[in-house]
Amino acid sequence: MSIVGIDLGATKLAVALLSENGEILAKEVIQVNRRKGKEVGLLVTEQVKKYIDTEGTALRSIGVSVPGISRNKTGTVWAPNIAGWEDYPLVHEIQNVAAGIPVNMDSDRACSILGEQWLGNARGCNDAIYMAVGTGIGAGILIDGKVLRGAHDIAGAVGWMALNKPYKNEYIPCGCFEHYASGEGIAKLTREILAHDQSYHGSLRQQDPAQLTAYHVFSAYDERDPIAVYVIRECITYWGMAVANLISIFNPEKIIFGGGIFGPAVKFIPAIKEEATKWAQPISVTQVSFERSGLQGDASIYGAGFLALKSIMTR
Amino acid sequence: MSIVGIDLGATKLAVALLSENGEILAKEVIQVNRRKGKEVGLLVTEQVKKYIDTEGTALRSIGVSVPGISRNKTGTVWAPNIAGWEDYPLVHEIQNVAAGIPVNMDSDRACSILGEQWLGNARGCNDAIYMAVGTGIGAGILIDGKVLRGAHDIAGAVGWMALNKPYKNEYIPCGCFEHYASGEGIAKLTREILAHDQSYHGSLRQQDPAQLTAYHVFSAYDERDPIAVYVIRECITYWGMAVANLISIFNPEKIIFGGGIFGPAVKFIPAIKEEATKWAQPISVTQVSFERSGLQGDASIYGAGFLALKSIMTR
Repeated sequence: MSIVGIDLGATKLAVALLSENGEILAKEVIQVNRRKGKEVGLLVTEQVKKYIDTEGTALRSIGVSVPGISRNKTGTVWAPNIAGWEDYPLVHEIQNVAAGIPVNMDSDRACSILGEQWLGNARGCNDAIYMAVGTGIGAGILIDGKVLRGAHDIAGAVGWMALNKPYKNEYIPCGCFEHYASGEGIAKLTREILAHDQSYHGSLRQQDPAQLTAYHVFSAYDERDPIAVYVIRECITYWGMAVANLISIFNPEKIIFGGGIFGPAVKFIPAIKEEATKWAQPISVTQVSFERSGLQGDASIYGAGFLALKSIMTR
Repeated sequence: MSIVGIDLGATKLAVALLSENGEILAKEVIQVNRRKGKEVGLLVTEQVKKYIDTEGTALRSIGVSVPGISRNKTGTVWAPNIAGWEDYPLVHEIQNVAAGIPVNMDSDRACSILGEQWLGNARGCNDAIYMAVGTGIGAGILIDGKVLRGAHDIAGAVGWMALNKPYKNEYIPCGCFEHYASGEGIAKLTREILAHDQSYHGSLRQQDPAQLTAYHVFSAYDERDPIAVYVIRECITYWGMAVANLISIFNPEKIIFGGGIFGPAVKFIPAIKEEATKWAQPISVTQVSFERSGLQGDASIYGAGFLALKSIMTR
């Protein structure tokens, strides 16, 4: 038997044919480019059709990871970075070409923790959290082996965590934690400091501010650039506080750090643990381990595969 | 049929005989006084024996709420305010006198949300949170109709939430949120301000600082006492931030405010909602309602009863 795992992102679509043991039998990555609305749906269903044709009855289940809110009851998607996807009927469209094969969908953060549970650093865990830090911040939360969805499918919006009073209007677009500690937050804070600190002539000054990203800040940190050191230390404090809160609330077995920023920030995990240990429930924090993602950029496609597999295992 | 609900607190033990509809058929409240270790266990088992004798086969199930950590696998209790209860085998002791009747136990915060779900303001909800603010702070969290326990039974320790950087050593005994916004925190901050502000001659000055409680501060607030107004406004900010975090993380249907402080703080729920709305995930915060406890001090005994009832309904 085989399953199909689909990882739809805002910029690219990855589709994999997987064995029930998680071996990738085939994989294709397609740029989404400027496609919008139904064009993106078509891109997905064409890939599904291809595997329906080539695999036949060997193909038993399909799982989909989407970049936004996966509405469980309706099978529709809200994806802020795909034009026209306010309530897009993706599950229905896939079912229309899937010849009766079950289709299951969840958000990318939910799929990431499922991927880690299946084949990554959360193997054997029933209570684990995937902290995804990229352009934005979200968390995939596993409780008793099931993904936390909430009453209306938007649980895990940890980028909105309140960590520093008083409230500032800068938090309006994305929340306090994400404002400071996302990839975009790192770049933004660095740009602000560069604009105000005219006495600074370090390497970050050579960068066009409009092009400056978190990755430039990580490089400058390695050269002990004072602005980069300040910005990254601020981030470590916020990451530590946020993780401490998740530990006190959930008493999990593992926290797994993923997303593009972990990547370069993996080396700060011990410092994040030290910060979190100051704040968190003191027993819980000794019962949790801090880990990097075992699957990196593939966590959500494996998770889509596991979603597919679990749906036929529980039948 | 009847069930027994037991609410063991640090200062008193309440035991109720309940019908399956939640009517209280009999209830007794006994002071724990200075009892410790096995004496407290004996106090509980004597009550159970009494109902076993009088009810006979009509008595079908027993539920217990305990003031601390209820260890699910071992049936033991860690209760910080009962001497000698580091790992007390309460379930085993009750089973020894319970003549084969099932015994189920959980923490007071877990039982409180179960009580509200059965007969209080969370009726009909599967995703709701009971925020208990008394001497300390904890939360009972219901997900898909089940209480969140965590990997080692200490989930819901929200008093440890990190809400205000940088870290201060004052947070060591009880955590940042509880330091500022528990009953004890309100009294402590007021005492500190009184000690430093010699120009203040308001009503709080008449109180012996050692005897000052949060209730004095609430009374002074009603007279627009400036220190009380400052302290309560700080609390509202912290309560709002903490609740915002729970909303962003869990996307719940309801937040229920209980414990001794709500009580007098019930009138601040609209102000807490206003503060939380600034911080929380903006869609989630429109999907949640903010409510007072429907059962007040009886939430955990009803919850113990519901725990008992659920255990025989699922058999």
